[in-house]
Amino acid sequence: MSTTTSATSVPGPDPAVPGVSLQELAAMRRALELAGRGPRGANPQVGCVVLAPDGRTLGEGWHQGAGTPHAEVAALADARERGADVRGATAVVTLEPCDHTGRTGPCSVALLSAGVARVVVGVSDPNPVAAGGADRLRAAGVDVVTGVLANEGAAALGPWLPAVRRGRPFVTLKIATTLDGRVAAVDGTSRWITSEVARRHAHALRAQVGAVVVGTGTALVDDPSLTARRGDGSMVDEQPLRVVVGTRDVPPGTRLRGPGGELVQVRTHDPARVLAALQEREVRHVLVEGGPTLAAAFLAAGLVDEVHAYVAPVLLGAGAGAIGDLGITTISDALRLVPTEVLPLGADVLVVATPEHPPRGTAEPIARTSTEKES
Amino acid sequence: MSTTTSATSVPGPDPAVPGVSLQELAAMRRALELAGRGPRGANPQVGCVVLAPDGRTLGEGWHQGAGTPHAEVAALADARERGADVRGATAVVTLEPCDHTGRTGPCSVALLSAGVARVVVGVSDPNPVAAGGADRLRAAGVDVVTGVLANEGAAALGPWLPAVRRGRPFVTLKIATTLDGRVAAVDGTSRWITSEVARRHAHALRAQVGAVVVGTGTALVDDPSLTARRGDGSMVDEQPLRVVVGTRDVPPGTRLRGPGGELVQVRTHDPARVLAALQEREVRHVLVEGGPTLAAAFLAAGLVDEVHAYVAPVLLGAGAGAIGDLGITTISDALRLVPTEVLPLGADVLVVATPEHPPRGTAEPIARTSTEKES
Repeated sequence: MSTTTSATSVPGPDPAVPGVSLQELAAMRRALELAGRGPRGANPQVGCVVLAPDGRTLGEGWHQGAGTPHAEVAALADARERGADVRGATAVVTLEPCDHTGRTGPCSVALLSAGVARVVVGVSDPNPVAAGGADRLRAAGVDVVTGVLANEGAAALGPWLPAVRRGRPFVTLKIATTLDGRVAAVDGTSRWITSEVARRHAHALRAQVGAVVVGTGTALVDDPSLTARRGDGSMVDEQPLRVVVGTRDVPPGTRLRGPGGELVQVRTHDPARVLAALQEREVRHVLVEGGPTLAAAFLAAGLVDEVHAYVAPVLLGAGAGAIGDLGITTISDALRLVPTEVLPLGADVLVVATPEHPPRGTAEPIARTSTEKES
Repeated sequence: MSTTTSATSVPGPDPAVPGVSLQELAAMRRALELAGRGPRGANPQVGCVVLAPDGRTLGEGWHQGAGTPHAEVAALADARERGADVRGATAVVTLEPCDHTGRTGPCSVALLSAGVARVVVGVSDPNPVAAGGADRLRAAGVDVVTGVLANEGAAALGPWLPAVRRGRPFVTLKIATTLDGRVAAVDGTSRWITSEVARRHAHALRAQVGAVVVGTGTALVDDPSLTARRGDGSMVDEQPLRVVVGTRDVPPGTRLRGPGGELVQVRTHDPARVLAALQEREVRHVLVEGGPTLAAAFLAAGLVDEVHAYVAPVLLGAGAGAIGDLGITTISDALRLVPTEVLPLGADVLVVATPEHPPRGTAEPIARTSTEKES
């Protein structure tokens, strides 16, 4: 079985899962809310609610980032702190409990030790290293239901889910163009094509990703800082890696060597090798910011999952285009995208779109219902 | 006094006009509604409501196109047909009554002959040939108020108003591009970049304009029909002129010589001369559809009033850009537009925008309130 899905697919109606109570559904919604409190990063955002057999909430938890307790462990600890007896309880968790000892122990074992009788799971764990939690729990006699609000669960996991499924970071390509598709004037100047509102929006995206990637051409010509900044110009605490792709050196004294995230140079022109290098660093979401040559290389390699196109009501008539040569010569071969969002931002418009044909990567099925899983 | 305004400016709050009753305001709103029933073309869309001294509606009329009675005359006729006595009545009319004998006689005279005691006017007539109606009425002792719901009145007149003010047709430039600003692939193919929904929308615009203009390059390469069609593919009754700009001949057997509006060739490369030729034919609204060279010529000449940019979620990486060379070499000289509408159309987005700096033309003040007029 091999299907792929977009990370940013809009949650549709959820498949009915038999045998799940309304209290458990409500707890899953709460767990999804809790999941969002955690940081985006190498680890997934997960939430958990522990319910008493009578449906009362005994504890809540969410994952607060690499090295801290997983959501299930945090929720069990919360319940114990409140003096609750968790034996025979139900754990409602947005992502399948891990079965893997990493920086923390397996959640499957923690749930078994606590004497939990039932586990309600949103999304099955796509991570081959960590999967198997549901099976271990079932083998130990715990009642496990999976696939509950799975679409919402997948949406809440964001780019982490397709990244883990595909075995490589999720790639967002950002372009900021005039209405006639230019990213710079003839003399190379490009500050600014888009409005301040649009640029702030782009900075908010930088603050969510693990790495921002540019080619050496852009690094040398534009001297960008590639930092994530707030509206007041100050830098956010967690800065993405700053990745320069290409063989030319980044000179001393450039902004990329100033304050901001770690500077990483990947001396290649192959986008797959760039992603492999970032995968090793557990980067789940990469923002490719240009220039046209690098953008074209990622697109031509089928390694773009999502395009963010900021379009400004400006005309230049000449200057570099947003995307370099893709080898496309006739309209029927055009790279067609499916828009998922159209957002006016000040005078500009942001179009978010995903490729019509699935991007490359290790394909895995999306969250399965328990029925499918058992068949 | 010399100010210019955009034809498509959004109606703001109307300046209060002293001495206008609520019944007259309501009648003006009705007259604006009636105006919209008439066709767009050489003549303005005008509506008129005749009120009895006690505020009852005696008659209604609107202008149904060149050669037919003007709105005031139609409304007086409607009142008489209903057996009403219009002496001492109030005529509420969206545009200042003309004072000019064209295909029909002056409305000012018709209103005087009918014995109307008061005239409430929306927008003052910007047409130097036809203006003076309010003055003639005042001189004859009629009570005249102007500038009532003038912003709404200006909006209802559409491109006709700036066209008459500027002494040349209002120019809409249409482009249909990929997200990276291409209007065709490397081999020249361009059918289709935009979705059917967007193309239908573009056909609806063709049906509203007096002329569709392309360069000879587009005429020869694309072999367009430049007709206005309905969703089912059938042609609308009133077809715009089909105008080809340039010195090369349009060959026999091309679609432009097939069914559709009259084919007009303007053998020049000067956009101002194109507009002068169309002004002679009383065209008020011109749609420039390409290609890049012609678009750039109109933009560089400051003769574009509005841009309609259909942007499709498609990437090509190469091929002709939407706009040819504008002579702009640095970002600070970019041609900046102000968006007035962002409209998702199927998978595409339509951005309607007007130049930040007023386009060229004979500038005239917009609708004045009676106070301004008398000062």
